Amino acid sequence: MSMLTEMGKQAKEAAVVLSVLPTPRKNKALCHAADALLAAKDEILAANKADVEAAVAAGIKGAFIDRLTLTEKRLQEMADGLRQVASLDDPVGKVLSMKTLDNGLIIGQKRVPMGVIGIIFEARPNVTADAFGLCLKAGSAVILRGGKEAIGTNKKVVSVFQKALEEEGLPGACVQIVQDTNRETANEMMRLNGYLDLLIPRGGAGLIQNVVQNSTVPVIQTGVGNCHVYVDESADLEKAVRIVINAKTQRPGVCNACESLLVHESLKDTFLPMIGKALQEKQVEIRGDEDTCARVPGAVAATEEDWATEYEDYIISTRVVKDLDEAINHIRRYSTGHSEAIVTENYTNAQRFLNEVDAAAVYVNASTRFTDGGQFGFGAEIGISTQKLHARGPMGLTELTTTKYIIYGDGQIRE
Amino acid sequence: MSMLTEMGKQAKEAAVVLSVLPTPRKNKALCHAADALLAAKDEILAANKADVEAAVAAGIKGAFIDRLTLTEKRLQEMADGLRQVASLDDPVGKVLSMKTLDNGLIIGQKRVPMGVIGIIFEARPNVTADAFGLCLKAGSAVILRGGKEAIGTNKKVVSVFQKALEEEGLPGACVQIVQDTNRETANEMMRLNGYLDLLIPRGGAGLIQNVVQNSTVPVIQTGVGNCHVYVDESADLEKAVRIVINAKTQRPGVCNACESLLVHESLKDTFLPMIGKALQEKQVEIRGDEDTCARVPGAVAATEEDWATEYEDYIISTRVVKDLDEAINHIRRYSTGHSEAIVTENYTNAQRFLNEVDAAAVYVNASTRFTDGGQFGFGAEIGISTQKLHARGPMGLTELTTTKYIIYGDGQIRE
Repeated sequence: MSMLTEMGKQAKEAAVVLSVLPTPRKNKALCHAADALLAAKDEILAANKADVEAAVAAGIKGAFIDRLTLTEKRLQEMADGLRQVASLDDPVGKVLSMKTLDNGLIIGQKRVPMGVIGIIFEARPNVTADAFGLCLKAGSAVILRGGKEAIGTNKKVVSVFQKALEEEGLPGACVQIVQDTNRETANEMMRLNGYLDLLIPRGGAGLIQNVVQNSTVPVIQTGVGNCHVYVDESADLEKAVRIVINAKTQRPGVCNACESLLVHESLKDTFLPMIGKALQEKQVEIRGDEDTCARVPGAVAATEEDWATEYEDYIISTRVVKDLDEAINHIRRYSTGHSEAIVTENYTNAQRFLNEVDAAAVYVNASTRFTDGGQFGFGAEIGISTQKLHARGPMGLTELTTTKYIIYGDGQIRE
Repeated sequence: MSMLTEMGKQAKEAAVVLSVLPTPRKNKALCHAADALLAAKDEILAANKADVEAAVAAGIKGAFIDRLTLTEKRLQEMADGLRQVASLDDPVGKVLSMKTLDNGLIIGQKRVPMGVIGIIFEARPNVTADAFGLCLKAGSAVILRGGKEAIGTNKKVVSVFQKALEEEGLPGACVQIVQDTNRETANEMMRLNGYLDLLIPRGGAGLIQNVVQNSTVPVIQTGVGNCHVYVDESADLEKAVRIVINAKTQRPGVCNACESLLVHESLKDTFLPMIGKALQEKQVEIRGDEDTCARVPGAVAATEEDWATEYEDYIISTRVVKDLDEAINHIRRYSTGHSEAIVTENYTNAQRFLNEVDAAAVYVNASTRFTDGGQFGFGAEIGISTQKLHARGPMGLTELTTTKYIIYGDGQIRE
């Protein structure tokens, strides 16, 4: 039996215990895990320091190192996150509907845990705590496979959680971390049918594509966002500037940031110069079509590739469209189905955009940056689904569960 | 561009039209398609006759030929099925929840069509009509890939539907059939990312395993059912006999039929001989453990393999268990998560079985044969999901849709 099959087996056994665990016991375990995390602060920070030093020595730089690094403040946030999950409503056990058939059978649809969830992620130790907390509260065991640069930190954090669980009388295998971070363990996890009920990749486009291409277990695809803001003929230009600047620059490196701006033809001489200047003041590079380049000094010509690119940076592609239809068609062609916005004062155009644009979140007169579990009021999220199966948009606790039918009979047989 | 990519492209364009089509127009198109099906009766039956003759000439026999064969009655049932789908509630457009956040954003979650659905199925021409009807009503275009033995019939039926759609002013590409039924087209369909939002295999275990193993598009796994009935210590034995006989023999070849019987130890001298006799009177072969074989004359010894086998035939495996825990553990080990039943008069055991057994449908005192979209009141079904992602149990129109978030703002930006 391979190491992963053995982990799968233990996770399944733990999942049986979790599936019927009362909410207060799950909450108590989460709060205990939060305390244990802070109590083990010194050991965890030491393990993390070793991970960071090894990564720096290997020539890794910049944002990657920042995401890998834990501080006392970040550990505190991880512990707070676990306590917040404890405070959320438990979705498990909710009966979504119940009806009595003519033959007297009573059929209910009840929310139940998924079972065993796998999560493959990059070198961000905070994801270890988030994923553990959300999966536990949703009643599922989790097998984590994090990036190799964070393995020392992750092993330490997970062992702290396991000890806390055992002190609560729960199986440590409610959370497990794959110790061996080579490519084979990730591939084996993608094919762990019979053990994993769901696999979620969290990370960049490369990781997600690899999981989608190679998994035989059910997958929820998260993340890539080539998001558009379309400024319609009737837009309030002041709102439009505020929304575009926020959607592009409030945090450019995330999936719900705006990557492409579409402007109605009638606004090309008014709005384009105005937004061009405002974006450039925020150090945003503008890659535009001919109309844009003619009106925004410093804009460079966009190529076909630009329309399809998620920059995650201070860059925006910009194009003039002749009407709403052209805007919708452009979005249909290049959108990754994440978040799309229209700025308009026209009722019919607002409704048409909401109806006709096919994305996880479609906005009228608001920034695309709101597509987020916290902002939507879920309390916490495990990622943002950009596929249409099971969950679409921010995924909270409910999206980590499934349902089953429970049927109360009195001897009914089928005629 | 390959044939399937071209079909995918046309399906996506048709899906745009379907996604905003008012319900009455979908219903009218379905009724028109039903009429057209009956009007083309002679041509369809002629095409089917040629398919059946070719299959017989190729040495195919039995139930396969029966499923392949269309008659006037079956065509009438296909047409009636389309009219029935027209009469069902349209799930598209339903707003599942809507709330106003503190910042004034109004966030709604709205049910929307899936987009393009692929269905791979075996040589059963009635599935062509069922799948077309359900997908159209759910607002999605469908690409069908049926078994090669039915290709002549399927091409004829689909061309009748396409003509009917065009007469209703709708794109014919709302329904398409893959003309080339070699293995490569099935494999290409499983990897049609960017075109297929969902792929559903309908058929035997081999087909389903092939799709699960090779698909990169999101899949809903349907079907395999190794279903158990557990007769508890306190069972009403008359009810228990009625339920076991119904679950095993009312239609043994389907996925919700009972394959395995578990009997509480205390009933081994009373219930076992009674049910043994009743099953044998229905020509059911009994493969039992030692206790069973000692008490049911004619029963043969079960092997380990029997416990895991979905016979789909007049065969049942039978075992004595010492208590509810042993019954639940046996089910946990061998169940395919389809339908599981307990027969008991004990309240606590009933509740424990409902809570602790992990399956799409869990029954107390009723036959497993009720796991069916029609029986559950869905009006029609596209299959029975045995996975936990997206849909679990019978899938009706709702399960063929997804959701999107619609957000009404007034200039909100993220702080």
